Amino acid sequence: MLQPQSEIKVFAGSSGREFARKVCEYIGVSLGKSEVITFSEGNTFVRVKETVRDKDVYLVQSIGLRPNDEFVEILFWLDAFKRASANSVTAIIPYFGYAKGDKKDEPRVSIRARVCADAIEMAGADRVVTMDLHSPQIQGFFKRPVDHLFALPVLCDYVKTLNIDNLVVVSPDTGFAKQARKYASHLGTSVAIGDKTRRAHDERAEVLEIIGDVEGKNCLVVDDFSISGGTLVDLARELKKRGAQRIIACLSHLLLNKEAVKRIDDSDIERVIGTDSVENHWVEMSDKIRVVSVAPLIAEAIIRIHNRESVSVLFDRTPGEVSKHRPKRC
Amino acid sequence: MLQPQSEIKVFAGSSGREFARKVCEYIGVSLGKSEVITFSEGNTFVRVKETVRDKDVYLVQSIGLRPNDEFVEILFWLDAFKRASANSVTAIIPYFGYAKGDKKDEPRVSIRARVCADAIEMAGADRVVTMDLHSPQIQGFFKRPVDHLFALPVLCDYVKTLNIDNLVVVSPDTGFAKQARKYASHLGTSVAIGDKTRRAHDERAEVLEIIGDVEGKNCLVVDDFSISGGTLVDLARELKKRGAQRIIACLSHLLLNKEAVKRIDDSDIERVIGTDSVENHWVEMSDKIRVVSVAPLIAEAIIRIHNRESVSVLFDRTPGEVSKHRPKRC
Amino acid sequence: MLQPQSEIKVFAGSSGREFARKVCEYIGVSLGKSEVITFSEGNTFVRVKETVRDKDVYLVQSIGLRPNDEFVEILFWLDAFKRASANSVTAIIPYFGYAKGDKKDEPRVSIRARVCADAIEMAGADRVVTMDLHSPQIQGFFKRPVDHLFALPVLCDYVKTLNIDNLVVVSPDTGFAKQARKYASHLGTSVAIGDKTRRAHDERAEVLEIIGDVEGKNCLVVDDFSISGGTLVDLARELKKRGAQRIIACLSHLLLNKEAVKRIDDSDIERVIGTDSVENHWVEMSDKIRVVSVAPLIAEAIIRIHNRESVSVLFDRTPGEVSKHRPKRC
Amino acid sequence: MLQPQSEIKVFAGSSGREFARKVCEYIGVSLGKSEVITFSEGNTFVRVKETVRDKDVYLVQSIGLRPNDEFVEILFWLDAFKRASANSVTAIIPYFGYAKGDKKDEPRVSIRARVCADAIEMAGADRVVTMDLHSPQIQGFFKRPVDHLFALPVLCDYVKTLNIDNLVVVSPDTGFAKQARKYASHLGTSVAIGDKTRRAHDERAEVLEIIGDVEGKNCLVVDDFSISGGTLVDLARELKKRGAQRIIACLSHLLLNKEAVKRIDDSDIERVIGTDSVENHWVEMSDKIRVVSVAPLIAEAIIRIHNRESVSVLFDRTPGEVSKHRPKRC
Amino acid sequence: MLQPQSEIKVFAGSSGREFARKVCEYIGVSLGKSEVITFSEGNTFVRVKETVRDKDVYLVQSIGLRPNDEFVEILFWLDAFKRASANSVTAIIPYFGYAKGDKKDEPRVSIRARVCADAIEMAGADRVVTMDLHSPQIQGFFKRPVDHLFALPVLCDYVKTLNIDNLVVVSPDTGFAKQARKYASHLGTSVAIGDKTRRAHDERAEVLEIIGDVEGKNCLVVDDFSISGGTLVDLARELKKRGAQRIIACLSHLLLNKEAVKRIDDSDIERVIGTDSVENHWVEMSDKIRVVSVAPLIAEAIIRIHNRESVSVLFDRTPGEVSKHRPKRC
Amino acid sequence: MLQPQSEIKVFAGSSGREFARKVCEYIGVSLGKSEVITFSEGNTFVRVKETVRDKDVYLVQSIGLRPNDEFVEILFWLDAFKRASANSVTAIIPYFGYAKGDKKDEPRVSIRARVCADAIEMAGADRVVTMDLHSPQIQGFFKRPVDHLFALPVLCDYVKTLNIDNLVVVSPDTGFAKQARKYASHLGTSVAIGDKTRRAHDERAEVLEIIGDVEGKNCLVVDDFSISGGTLVDLARELKKRGAQRIIACLSHLLLNKEAVKRIDDSDIERVIGTDSVENHWVEMSDKIRVVSVAPLIAEAIIRIHNRESVSVLFDRTPGEVSKHRPKRC
Repeated sequence: MLQPQSEIKVFAGSSGREFARKVCEYIGVSLGKSEVITFSEGNTFVRVKETVRDKDVYLVQSIGLRPNDEFVEILFWLDAFKRASANSVTAIIPYFGYAKGDKKDEPRVSIRARVCADAIEMAGADRVVTMDLHSPQIQGFFKRPVDHLFALPVLCDYVKTLNIDNLVVVSPDTGFAKQARKYASHLGTSVAIGDKTRRAHDERAEVLEIIGDVEGKNCLVVDDFSISGGTLVDLARELKKRGAQRIIACLSHLLLNKEAVKRIDDSDIERVIGTDSVENHWVEMSDKIRVVSVAPLIAEAIIRIHNRESVSVLFDRTPGEVSKHRPKRC
Repeated sequence: MLQPQSEIKVFAGSSGREFARKVCEYIGVSLGKSEVITFSEGNTFVRVKETVRDKDVYLVQSIGLRPNDEFVEILFWLDAFKRASANSVTAIIPYFGYAKGDKKDEPRVSIRARVCADAIEMAGADRVVTMDLHSPQIQGFFKRPVDHLFALPVLCDYVKTLNIDNLVVVSPDTGFAKQARKYASHLGTSVAIGDKTRRAHDERAEVLEIIGDVEGKNCLVVDDFSISGGTLVDLARELKKRGAQRIIACLSHLLLNKEAVKRIDDSDIERVIGTDSVENHWVEMSDKIRVVSVAPLIAEAIIRIHNRESVSVLFDRTPGEVSKHRPKRC
Repeated sequence: MLQPQSEIKVFAGSSGREFARKVCEYIGVSLGKSEVITFSEGNTFVRVKETVRDKDVYLVQSIGLRPNDEFVEILFWLDAFKRASANSVTAIIPYFGYAKGDKKDEPRVSIRARVCADAIEMAGADRVVTMDLHSPQIQGFFKRPVDHLFALPVLCDYVKTLNIDNLVVVSPDTGFAKQARKYASHLGTSVAIGDKTRRAHDERAEVLEIIGDVEGKNCLVVDDFSISGGTLVDLARELKKRGAQRIIACLSHLLLNKEAVKRIDDSDIERVIGTDSVENHWVEMSDKIRVVSVAPLIAEAIIRIHNRESVSVLFDRTPGEVSKHRPKRC
Repeated sequence: MLQPQSEIKVFAGSSGREFARKVCEYIGVSLGKSEVITFSEGNTFVRVKETVRDKDVYLVQSIGLRPNDEFVEILFWLDAFKRASANSVTAIIPYFGYAKGDKKDEPRVSIRARVCADAIEMAGADRVVTMDLHSPQIQGFFKRPVDHLFALPVLCDYVKTLNIDNLVVVSPDTGFAKQARKYASHLGTSVAIGDKTRRAHDERAEVLEIIGDVEGKNCLVVDDFSISGGTLVDLARELKKRGAQRIIACLSHLLLNKEAVKRIDDSDIERVIGTDSVENHWVEMSDKIRVVSVAPLIAEAIIRIHNRESVSVLFDRTPGEVSKHRPKRC
Repeated sequence: MLQPQSEIKVFAGSSGREFARKVCEYIGVSLGKSEVITFSEGNTFVRVKETVRDKDVYLVQSIGLRPNDEFVEILFWLDAFKRASANSVTAIIPYFGYAKGDKKDEPRVSIRARVCADAIEMAGADRVVTMDLHSPQIQGFFKRPVDHLFALPVLCDYVKTLNIDNLVVVSPDTGFAKQARKYASHLGTSVAIGDKTRRAHDERAEVLEIIGDVEGKNCLVVDDFSISGGTLVDLARELKKRGAQRIIACLSHLLLNKEAVKRIDDSDIERVIGTDSVENHWVEMSDKIRVVSVAPLIAEAIIRIHNRESVSVLFDRTPGEVSKHRPKRC
Repeated sequence: MLQPQSEIKVFAGSSGREFARKVCEYIGVSLGKSEVITFSEGNTFVRVKETVRDKDVYLVQSIGLRPNDEFVEILFWLDAFKRASANSVTAIIPYFGYAKGDKKDEPRVSIRARVCADAIEMAGADRVVTMDLHSPQIQGFFKRPVDHLFALPVLCDYVKTLNIDNLVVVSPDTGFAKQARKYASHLGTSVAIGDKTRRAHDERAEVLEIIGDVEGKNCLVVDDFSISGGTLVDLARELKKRGAQRIIACLSHLLLNKEAVKRIDDSDIERVIGTDSVENHWVEMSDKIRVVSVAPLIAEAIIRIHNRESVSVLFDRTPGEVSKHRPKRC
């Protein structure tokens, strides 16, 4: 199944090195030689340090906590690989940072995800692999194939190891309700939904309602990401007020900042589960936060793309199953 | 405010003529002369019958109940206007039919809305005006400006005239929950959400749950469209079972077919309110269905685009307010 | 010569299935698994049901008697194949329906064939194979390679089996005269040309002249297609009036509708010979109409493209010769 | 009608200066200042010598008897005008030289007219005006609007002044038959067609047949262009043999070389009528050749484009009518 | 001359506000309302806070000391303006930071300036105005018009006020020699050139030679930018060693960092003259550094673009002359 | 190392045949069959005379002394190869003639190198190989990979065989100084620079200064090309005046015309060394001119591209080294 793998050329951007190394270890190749220099006036310079002529290149770099640097770096990498005559370049962007800017929800703003998609295609990406996009429509911002992977099976696998019964999945708002429904279906539970409203039209104060029943239940709050932790912590408090028991949170992308980590430590939340899609050292500060690696998931996707096998099978099973012939890492 | 309107050139596609005439009447211009011929072997042929050289042209045509004919016709119109040296062409597509195909939610399918967006831009559209897209991200499928209008204020205005108290807005599923929240905020009500699940993992039978409280309440079920009416009718029955009083439904786009109209007539639904974004003669068959015209909304958008005024103000007020110096129509 | 054929992946659009099956039978492969759904509101949905990752895909679908449905379906297929990471996609369009719209012969109309060509390339076609385009210039509407096949040898082969002597090839009008010359050269005959004129400038009545001598001759009327059969029947009557003997007609694409078939049955035309480039069940109604299959021609083109052999050799010999090591079908 | 004409900016390429001056004289403007330098190593350099910022520029240059130099020069002009911030640039190419390369009529050749169209659009042309294209489909090689003018009315006007009765229009081959039909309809005559064939299949010798009756008639041979004059002279001899009286030829574009002019002088052809679309000094050598100017036609097109009036009206009447309030030139 | 100026809409990016305000003051307009938010996870969000529908917008933002943030911000601004239906958007980038990445001078690197140019055009820029590009060829990386302004006259004007005689212009290396020649011609002096070499092939140590005579002369060292100041200081020491008198440096873009400023303070350089093209607060730390404003130059360019006047006249005279009817600022 | 070379398909344009034959001889393949016809009216027609379906094609043609014919021919070749379904086409343009037009150094001119680059990419080039571009930035005018080779090692190798000591490399002007520095470093010498100035501001007469010391030295004047030889001869005279001994000139591209060759013969220049990148028969007239072949360099590049090896290694060594296992030619 992995025969022609000697050809797989995985390269890492400046903030994807640690993750890319795990991916390479899983695949059984060594990381491509390359270098990023940030000059003292701030310019980014990238250099590929081995021949890629006619190779199929996989570049690993999220648009994460230094989004502009990381995004611009991706563009320069793509151009460098294409001008160095790579046969194809797949941009592996585990967290696609500007995906939140996917619509024009107020006048005279930009659709940032489309701007990024256009620039990435223009710079030379032949394919994009990403995970848990803020909205699945972003696939359509690209003309080139996008493999859109899901952290859900990986995260749910971990949740199952916790053996929590009487569980309800809680969406922090109506916008994530559809996604919460998928978690609930996977785990065989019901759903509740946070709903922020204003009591009366002229009143300032926002009120957080919970639609659905949580009394006496253990709550799994799910979201694609959280930065300040505010929504999670407020929701946890409200759930407690309504008689919820244990409160666990699941986040696809861990963008939590220093304050968020502290806020979570001081909160009703028992545990936060997330992935390593973003390089974020704050999360190591807290015992409450567990990082599950999606490197095996990404690695499987690369292997399948490279072996010309279907990537879609990855959507239906957990990486646990997929990787059963390999040492687990997380 | 409407001074340079003599220049506005509104044309209609084959299924947008009645709607376009209302738009023209509101603006105070006559409909552009044009002709569509469908040859006996099925070919569509369009012909613009007056000069458009250097004019700003507005073409009105939904992608509705004959979506392929209507979509292809739009492409031919755009090419005809551009080759006839129109200064700009705005495609006014009140219902953008293929918007539901906005993501790749299973392997090896197309993202049809992007295919349509690309073809429309390639054929020459300088701008698109549309209403209640299946997802707002579709704006980002276009590079050219898209004015995305909302039927919500028009529909809510009508609902308010019904003077129903103790109202709850009900979303038929978790996917429309965010949109239902907007209706609820506009009307000052709470939200309930339909949630289809399977009781156990191996069981076939789907169960419709209602998240949130509806007992003793009057329900306003909202959705962007319905074809067979099945979901609406099932939901209405379930709501009744849970003690709901009156049940009203609000649909942005009336795609209901003959069977749907009959099904609604026989159901617990008291009234269905929708817009005239799609030419659909079945809806005239039922006394339960009320069609509110969005022609004034579209007309206001054209006027504002033409006068180089902000279109975004239309998003915050109802057409009722906007059109107060004009005879109302709906 | 046909070694790597296991890789050939032929798929059929909704109206090309029967034809594609003949093509597959000739090649010796089975038709790719796929599905087209037309929803009750008219939307077309396509789904590829087997992996095509890195495969060379050949999609068979004419733009025929439901031209808009068939054209839009082609666009969706192309996008689906490309997003499913096919290595290349060849659109095989035996009859390219909008080819008649190849020029702007009156003001303010569209050049429909260019609109279709652009959309097809934009949606992802890497190559197009088609037959008897209304004008050969349409190849230049595409940037990608177009293999333009000719039905002439297949049709003439059939005509030769009729053993008609004293033959003259007749073009119905001056526009098809050049093409008629090619038939005549292939069959070693002379040419006559129908010429519709108005006798005097202010007179309405059109007169059909015949340029060239047909008295006592057997006439082979040739055209690329006919829809109503009117021109053919009128021409046949005029030829008879001028002393012509037997009258046979050759059409590349059989678009004849129900009335046309009846009209031909009642006419001086002895036989109509055409190809199966378009799915058209009316033609089975008449004993006068003989359908010759071009599936072997298309199949040979696919084999040659796939084996990286010259397709142009197909232009000089008849499929009969080409396929001599295979069971004949027509 | 000519009010805002002070804005018209007409520039000439190196071989269009004389023609452009006639155009400017007709319009009543002076020719834009510019310069072309051909360096001793062959490089072409163009320089616009007056500001064109935000102006609508009309560049006059055929692709004529130095086609590569003239074509490349057009590209450089377009780029220069665009980078100099012209508002729009219209390429006026009275003779579009590579139009003959409009199809792939043998394997492994290029479609030169599409190559030229792409380069012209890429370099910045917003619109193209041309005359008597080798095939009307070439309009579809461009995405931008093309105004395709016809020399027919200008040429026929001249023919009418010759007061020749008993006229038949003769097409030199079947390919031009459709176009000959248009001349015949305009002049109220019948049509005859030259038809080159080989008597038997294995025989080398080509035989020129005449389809249609020419005995005792005066013949107007029409074609879009002739280079060596060979076809014309052979046809004239054959027509004479069949009893034709006077023989006049009409050519849209005079590409005749020195030998052709001599050959015509020695032939049965009484007179050749053509236009000044191509700068060609050989034609001044012969008294048989009459050059009718299409500068008024082009000038009218520019005026109408500039005044945002319909250009298509030019297709139905002769420049004689159009220009009746002006001094005639030809 | 400035009549229709009420229409000029100047907006500033986050690091161009101070500079843009000077530009607006010169023109006599107020700065457009807009807002940039950097979210705590690093995302950039831009919002235009007044209508720009059909306006000609000028966005001022260098790619300076936070190049990636500033570049990405430009992309988002362009998209926001275009989707808000601005008639045109001119990106005014006084310092185009990635211009140094203008060639592939080693294998497998990117041409960063082309990557940036493509992304800027793709995001919607209709025109670019910039100053002292690292190489003039970068204009050709853009298809859209680029107005390339020069700081030379502004800087030389300042140098002339110092009344230094016996001046020689010194280029720090052979690469800037051509540009140094222009300074020398403007000031009527000769040129000397720094030339770094290695004495022998295998030796590590680089030696700085001075080509040309500097003994007893006052030296004006010129360069497009300096970051660490190292080259300047080394060159100054070497010039002194060879008998040079006073040493002045002229830099188009002041990218000097904290260390550079200190290094210059401690060096043989008497004064550094530069422009305010980059927002850089370090330069205020040193009395040796004089900042001359190019805001009037940029403002004049905007006025001329807006009035559809030639911008090239700005290249031949100094802003001092140009702005003589206005209060001077620098 | 050369295993799969049977696949290499080298074709030559009309002025690259002799050079291409040397390239093929070096590689060990025979030149592809093709044909160029120039019709009597000047049209260029190209025809590929063997199948290239799925082949990697290398087309050799400089844009040299008939630049427009050669450039247009390249476009037609590219289109022909792409429409003939070549897998890839590499345009090998040893001398890229319009490279001098790489910037807008005066108002209202075109950037001719970008126009050419765009047209070449549009017509279908997948890769470009060229040598000694007028400026290295031109690589950035292309989006596709450009292999930019250098004649320097080949030329220096030849210079070394002359065993000249006490050498100084002389740049004819400040613009070529950086390039001269590279020659000097390769040869281990110092640099001097020609500097044309005007003595006083209002004076006409240009004076040629020499910056740097040349007295008693042997001078190697280097430049990318010379047409009239004027600059070289003037510089040689000036160098002699300043006490220079022997004077040798090195030119990458020999564009010298007849007068230039004579002028050099009569001058102080002892020898001119150049390459065969341009077909130029004048240079055979003079004994002073030595042509060194870069066919081995180009051949090595093709071999490496074809074998998917790094081309950049060619930049660091001389073709002499590279080709040591092969018979030398020059």
